[in-house]
Amino acid sequence: MHVPRPALAADLPAVGRLLHDFNTEFGDPSPGPDQLSARCAELIEDGDTSILVVGTPPSAVAVIRYRRAVWSPGNEAYLAELYVVPALRGQGIGTALMAAVVDDARARQCEELSIAVDESDHGARRFYERLGFTNRSSSGLMYYYEQQL
Amino acid sequence: MHVPRPALAADLPAVGRLLHDFNTEFGDPSPGPDQLSARCAELIEDGDTSILVVGTPPSAVAVIRYRRAVWSPGNEAYLAELYVVPALRGQGIGTALMAAVVDDARARQCEELSIAVDESDHGARRFYERLGFTNRSSSGLMYYYEQQL
Repeated sequence: MHVPRPALAADLPAVGRLLHDFNTEFGDPSPGPDQLSARCAELIEDGDTSILVVGTPPSAVAVIRYRRAVWSPGNEAYLAELYVVPALRGQGIGTALMAAVVDDARARQCEELSIAVDESDHGARRFYERLGFTNRSSSGLMYYYEQQL
Repeated sequence: MHVPRPALAADLPAVGRLLHDFNTEFGDPSPGPDQLSARCAELIEDGDTSILVVGTPPSAVAVIRYRRAVWSPGNEAYLAELYVVPALRGQGIGTALMAAVVDDARARQCEELSIAVDESDHGARRFYERLGFTNRSSSGLMYYYEQQL
């Protein structure tokens, strides 16, 4: 069974490897598994991040960032990363992980969970839309803008 | 001159009013100026938020949220709110405020500044695109997805 659980310290080397593989798969730069593993330890220590995994050693990971909301007394959640190793896709691991992400965000008093997704990533968009995410506000589509500093 | 500066405690009642007027102008719900003012005090106290204003009392406000980045040793910035009172628009206040936002984000070791903008908000999109923001990654448009919890 694919039972998501919070990452323990012993999982972090594998988590760093998964995140590295994630970016490598999409052709994005990565600081390498070791630096990512160390960074994850810092984020968990800070308290504003949950890292959930499936498997021992982990073969899937979700990284969720939390902060206080501006407009409500609660918090808001941002799904920073979600990755399942290619060999294990199509078995419901991502869906199980997302259910755990939502539970975690609710337990952290969040009223909203957000994520940025590329228009061209049709698989991810179908996946998130099936789970109840929308890229439409009351006035239409929502874009994610970035600026490098 | 429109010289942006960090909001002081004495500015927060006006800041709460500006944020309330912001959501009211766009037909979105607001908890009211007093709760927003109190919330801003909490966010500044937490240390993960900068609130910049123009004018005494403030007639424009920017709220920037900060957190550690996952993929780099630095931080990342999210422009949560940017508002100029309607009577003072078109005078460069928003542009001056955004220059201060970028300076603040760089001073906080951020490599990236992001924002969510509605597709239909053509004025805002032109404004941010002129300042160097893009809603395109290497693989195309980027959408912002949300789920209410």
